[in-house]
Amino acid sequence: MNKKMIIYILGKMLGVEGAVLLIPALVSLIYGEKSGFSFLIVGAILGVIFLIFGRKRPKSTRIYGKEGFVIVGLAWILWSLFGALPFYISGSIPAYIDALFETVSGFTTTGSTILQEIESLPMGINFWRCLTHWIGGMGVLVFVMMITSLDDENSMPLMRAEMPGPEADKLVPKARQTATILYGMYFALTAVEVILLMFGGMNLYDALVHSFSTAGTGGFSNRNASVSFYDSAYIDGVITVFMILFGVNFNLYFLLLLKDWKNVLKNEELRAYLGIIAAAIAVITVNTLNIYQNVLHAFRYASFQVASVITTTGFYTADYELWPELSKTVLLTIMFIGACAGSTGGGIKVSRFVILCKSIRQEVRKILHPNAVTVIKMNGKRVSQDTLRGINVYFAAYVFILAASVLIVSIDNFDFATSFSGVLTTINNVGPGISKVGPVENFHMFSPLSKIVFSFDMLVGRLEIIPYLLMLSPDLWRRRF
Amino acid sequence: MNKKMIIYILGKMLGVEGAVLLIPALVSLIYGEKSGFSFLIVGAILGVIFLIFGRKRPKSTRIYGKEGFVIVGLAWILWSLFGALPFYISGSIPAYIDALFETVSGFTTTGSTILQEIESLPMGINFWRCLTHWIGGMGVLVFVMMITSLDDENSMPLMRAEMPGPEADKLVPKARQTATILYGMYFALTAVEVILLMFGGMNLYDALVHSFSTAGTGGFSNRNASVSFYDSAYIDGVITVFMILFGVNFNLYFLLLLKDWKNVLKNEELRAYLGIIAAAIAVITVNTLNIYQNVLHAFRYASFQVASVITTTGFYTADYELWPELSKTVLLTIMFIGACAGSTGGGIKVSRFVILCKSIRQEVRKILHPNAVTVIKMNGKRVSQDTLRGINVYFAAYVFILAASVLIVSIDNFDFATSFSGVLTTINNVGPGISKVGPVENFHMFSPLSKIVFSFDMLVGRLEIIPYLLMLSPDLWRRRF
Repeated sequence: MNKKMIIYILGKMLGVEGAVLLIPALVSLIYGEKSGFSFLIVGAILGVIFLIFGRKRPKSTRIYGKEGFVIVGLAWILWSLFGALPFYISGSIPAYIDALFETVSGFTTTGSTILQEIESLPMGINFWRCLTHWIGGMGVLVFVMMITSLDDENSMPLMRAEMPGPEADKLVPKARQTATILYGMYFALTAVEVILLMFGGMNLYDALVHSFSTAGTGGFSNRNASVSFYDSAYIDGVITVFMILFGVNFNLYFLLLLKDWKNVLKNEELRAYLGIIAAAIAVITVNTLNIYQNVLHAFRYASFQVASVITTTGFYTADYELWPELSKTVLLTIMFIGACAGSTGGGIKVSRFVILCKSIRQEVRKILHPNAVTVIKMNGKRVSQDTLRGINVYFAAYVFILAASVLIVSIDNFDFATSFSGVLTTINNVGPGISKVGPVENFHMFSPLSKIVFSFDMLVGRLEIIPYLLMLSPDLWRRRF
Repeated sequence: MNKKMIIYILGKMLGVEGAVLLIPALVSLIYGEKSGFSFLIVGAILGVIFLIFGRKRPKSTRIYGKEGFVIVGLAWILWSLFGALPFYISGSIPAYIDALFETVSGFTTTGSTILQEIESLPMGINFWRCLTHWIGGMGVLVFVMMITSLDDENSMPLMRAEMPGPEADKLVPKARQTATILYGMYFALTAVEVILLMFGGMNLYDALVHSFSTAGTGGFSNRNASVSFYDSAYIDGVITVFMILFGVNFNLYFLLLLKDWKNVLKNEELRAYLGIIAAAIAVITVNTLNIYQNVLHAFRYASFQVASVITTTGFYTADYELWPELSKTVLLTIMFIGACAGSTGGGIKVSRFVILCKSIRQEVRKILHPNAVTVIKMNGKRVSQDTLRGINVYFAAYVFILAASVLIVSIDNFDFATSFSGVLTTINNVGPGISKVGPVENFHMFSPLSKIVFSFDMLVGRLEIIPYLLMLSPDLWRRRF
């Protein structure tokens, strides 16, 4: 394993984080907040780390898949460890473990919080909190790749390790260019949302914060009551639509830029994604009719909550804890499914489910026609054996980690719905769960051990297990490479 | 598809069920109960069906895998539909849907019940209720195969469709002989348990009923308080040991008969099974220490409940609803795992988990050494690609059915722990769950729709999904074979 190159890239990455911290520092300056110094202190520490490790390029620069996974796995941990420091140093979050939970929740775009009171946070601090969503959404490494020049020969293993979904594709041959195009589209969509939200009466700060959260499908807000604070059908509508948009595979937006409508409309994952959303909204609208007494009201709250949960954003406009059990179970189910591959959303991803369904159908066909050769296709292309095996392993590992996490968290002795949905919501990067971690509740009451488990689950969910599985493998550390 | 052969075999099978009903009729006669007539009525109906469909052999007798699955799938439904009639006709269970639930729960060795009061049941009726466990445990078809002469050329597809686990093996070349050996060992173990229980002070009837339940890993009892009624450390101990024994692959007992100790001790599934049991008992013993105030007491209740849940029997000696959440979650986890393949126990099966774990490790190795050829081995033998694919499909279909069932059951608006553990306990053929379906509760309060879903889940769990997946497939019905 090329350890020198790993250290070099990580050094560079921390340098970028140091530079990024100047943005919330600026916000603090505008609002004249002393807590802004905490960003400068941490920025300075990161600058020194960059100068020591991130400047001198090693002789051998070649890295492969395994280094890619290790770098990505470590990068997300390090960004979180240092990104948590401003919350801690400024005193906004008194316990470091809580600050770490909050930062991991930010970068992984989970949106679970340990804060019971958000509106009293300094503006700069909360800006940083929500900015982590925006950066984490499209990927920490993709972000770094766009800003600094990692050579193209090395960027693909990194990109592949960070991109969500069963298969990663470059849009264009050069990885840095791909990163730039992705962030360009991401930036443009975010900007449109900011403008539309300001039309609805939000001020610039609120519009920015909520757009960061929507874009990253995170869920942090600067209002204790989340989006329900505004109580505006227009704002609910804008955010609903944008949550759904950010849950779509960004490759499809690139196809739209190329005017390739046909392949977008025929995309099987997109169809399944929109179909599941429509079905979930329909069921919940009908199921909550006698709460809202009005179809339009029920539809408004159903669609916001469905969009928020399936894209794993985690905003809320209604306390779905008060909904009937069927509606809550629908939300838990789509929480599990998640958004599209290659989007900023979390969860297992719609395409994995589509492929799993197809493999079940294939198995039945094999029994009916034992000698026929059957192939699983997705969007007209054959799904390779490697991809299939990867999905199956992912699915199995997901269930194992889920079960192990619920076991550990249950030591805290909260009811089963709390432990189970708490793990489900963090591993899928959603935010709120049901029962004691419902939308109007939060995670402050868990033990430090549980908070570490939740943080691990958020990272594991965002990076889709493999990097941390690899880092936990004795095989990686036992041998000399 | 060879429809005539399917009807012929099903006709024959129903004839066997009619003959079996004479056993509880005899018990009713001994106790002088009028309800015994209900067995004779149903037995006569089944006799007529046998005479019409099960006597004349079709010209073409050849059947393949698909017919095997269809026969097994239908046979279990038909045995349940007719087996429920005595409960209904005798008036012991006034609603037919409840009688069906109870019978499916019996044959699939689930042990969930809709009865709130068991001790007032006629002796003959409850004998039949518990006898269904014994027959269902080793398999309805294997039972028929031993009694009547299905030709050997046809018995393997049937046996394979009914045997639990990822791979089915014949012990000896002839299937009927295999069936006889299996039932011989099963009968012997059951007989030993009956004798040991009578030593502990049980009367013959109670000993028989509880041995049927243990052997089939079912869970029905003739006592409202289940095994806790006897409040005897000796009886708890005997049943604990026998539950664990009946959760072991019966092929291993055959190896023991052949004095092949080495392969038994080296068996990976057995080691994992015993390891999980030991770990679960250890965790729960420690976790419940301040309830029982005594290590031996805690150990006694922990081991009984762990053995009962992992083997999916469902007896209880302690109301684990009162245990801490960690202990309850441990029980839910091992409920999910289940017993060994080729045993009478349900669940996903330990061997499937062992193979899934190995395939996760293999995936990590592939990333570390992209060019190395890696193979998954179990007990020194290579696991075939077909088996691996089968396990993955099984696992995916299992999770889908679980989620869909929880969704439908949640319409009844019970809390999440009730809906979720109710589905989990039926699909894994355990019996009780947690919350409102906890050990001292039962399933009577669910709607007929939920009871149908639970019955479907019990059948799907017992036959390991594929037969019903096949029967639900439009492909099977669309074409002419």
